[in-house]
Amino acid sequence: MGISSDYRDKRVLVTGGLGFIGSNLVRRLVRLGASVTVIDACYPDQGANFYNLKDYLEKINLVVADIGEADKISEYLPDQEIVFNLAASTSHVGSLLNPLRDLERNCLSQLKFLNLLADLSPRTMVVYTGSRSQYGKPLYLPVDENHPLRPVDINGVHKTTVEEYHRVFHERNRLRCTSLRLTNVFGPRHQMQHDGQGFLNWFIREGLLGNEILVYGEGSQQRDFLYVEDVVEALLLAGTSEACVGKAFNLASGTSITVAEAARAVAEATGTTWRKAPFPPEYASVEPGDIELDASLFRETLGWEPRWDFHAGLMETIVFYRQHGNHYFRSQEWKTCRTRNR
Amino acid sequence: MGISSDYRDKRVLVTGGLGFIGSNLVRRLVRLGASVTVIDACYPDQGANFYNLKDYLEKINLVVADIGEADKISEYLPDQEIVFNLAASTSHVGSLLNPLRDLERNCLSQLKFLNLLADLSPRTMVVYTGSRSQYGKPLYLPVDENHPLRPVDINGVHKTTVEEYHRVFHERNRLRCTSLRLTNVFGPRHQMQHDGQGFLNWFIREGLLGNEILVYGEGSQQRDFLYVEDVVEALLLAGTSEACVGKAFNLASGTSITVAEAARAVAEATGTTWRKAPFPPEYASVEPGDIELDASLFRETLGWEPRWDFHAGLMETIVFYRQHGNHYFRSQEWKTCRTRNR
Repeated sequence: MGISSDYRDKRVLVTGGLGFIGSNLVRRLVRLGASVTVIDACYPDQGANFYNLKDYLEKINLVVADIGEADKISEYLPDQEIVFNLAASTSHVGSLLNPLRDLERNCLSQLKFLNLLADLSPRTMVVYTGSRSQYGKPLYLPVDENHPLRPVDINGVHKTTVEEYHRVFHERNRLRCTSLRLTNVFGPRHQMQHDGQGFLNWFIREGLLGNEILVYGEGSQQRDFLYVEDVVEALLLAGTSEACVGKAFNLASGTSITVAEAARAVAEATGTTWRKAPFPPEYASVEPGDIELDASLFRETLGWEPRWDFHAGLMETIVFYRQHGNHYFRSQEWKTCRTRNR
Repeated sequence: MGISSDYRDKRVLVTGGLGFIGSNLVRRLVRLGASVTVIDACYPDQGANFYNLKDYLEKINLVVADIGEADKISEYLPDQEIVFNLAASTSHVGSLLNPLRDLERNCLSQLKFLNLLADLSPRTMVVYTGSRSQYGKPLYLPVDENHPLRPVDINGVHKTTVEEYHRVFHERNRLRCTSLRLTNVFGPRHQMQHDGQGFLNWFIREGLLGNEILVYGEGSQQRDFLYVEDVVEALLLAGTSEACVGKAFNLASGTSITVAEAARAVAEATGTTWRKAPFPPEYASVEPGDIELDASLFRETLGWEPRWDFHAGLMETIVFYRQHGNHYFRSQEWKTCRTRNR
């Protein structure tokens, strides 16, 4: 069976479904014939953008709520067959300035959600998206799944806490859970309002707006970028795989380039320039250095291979934002969805 | 310098200081000449017992508050030199029944506390007490500090989350933190109201009340019991050691006996009997099997050695409860302290 038949008429819930990865996943799920419910809190500093699903709204259930709000989400949980649990508040610097908010939005909301889901829809398959930030500054490269988890900030700590909730709920037979720890993901539908999440998309924004691209420090750190469509493919595979259940996997492209090389590629493709600039202290303090994840466990378990090389993904992303950039660079279409529910 | 001069006139804060380990530590600190403040929430299902410090109340500051209650504790935090951060809600079964309460009492309160402490008393030395439950079912024995952290319940997950808060606060130069991961600790001043924390003390209670001691299952699981006075000694050493800062250490006796052997020893010493009984399902589900921690890293770093063997600690504990048992077995003197503040 291929992915296409696996998802036809399946009841699928995507938390964080108005965000970057979530909305790309939802669009694919709808095209595969799944019955899709989206829950998204639409926090203004996060990735939700109403425009991400504007042309799909008639084909999904959209619930604007924090996943911790039982009164708003309970009716949508029974009988869900697969849950892609992507809802998260992601801010490394912000989690140090306001760690309690990070705790509330990530751990508290997720624990409420999993507890409720296990009660209302037991044995559901849940795919959680972890992060390479769980590892902190690598002790060796490439980083495999056995690398110690020593994140540099509170957000990274909480990514692991929530992953651990999934593992414990799985081991107690209340849900069936898999975690994919993602590396630097880029592509269409990423928020472009601030540079606190994913600097490659920020470079693209700067290039398309004709601004000079600023690389903090020497830009010599290695990063393995992964195009969002490859992440969607991996999530879809994990969502129907019994072999994945109970495990955590790295997900990465396996090919690294430096931050400076990425800046140069974006500058060339968008016709702008780039230069090095001093690291702002708050960014320096959460900079993990070279990153390269070893994704061989996931590749071997599911036969997944990334299909998009860096350049092809970059071109696709630039084409998308050239056409739709006005919904991401200046306007804030997430505001629309805060007043809407259905 | 020995421990005795290290603590003379030092300003020391003990969170959870009315509890089992905390009160034994406080008594020792007072005798060493420290200026001691105790913060304890006196949650009725936890270890606080007013009687634990009844004869020391004129010599300490006692604040009855949750460590997350800034309005109640802020005035006591400035200028603390050493903080023994023992406050915790410990219930493995309870954390599965009510995971949100476990999150609130452990992660939320601790994160508030550390954030406040770092603001009001930066660079303070903080010694946190972790737990062998952070490791879960051992993959190998003895368990060293590099063993994966895969606890079997939510309380164990949160023990690691809070330990990680300490590490991140330390690495960001906001506090100086050490974690000691404790094995099965026993001794005087342990609560005797329920068997949800530390079964050896529960065996002693049953023996002293003339009840038959029930061992769940075969009782063949190995445990390395550690007498509370050895833990106090280790905490005191860690509290003044720069070599410990930023690290997590196992703390254990290094000599294991089985649960059945422990039951037999208690039965002989108290003149009662013991027998095997079926595992209640909720206990079976959090039973980690054989446990033996490798404490060589801490022993080598600080020259600490346990001074109490199992039998000597057991006799001392029985003597204590023979004399004071009425304040632990039946009465609930923690109730007194909920209406009282310093």
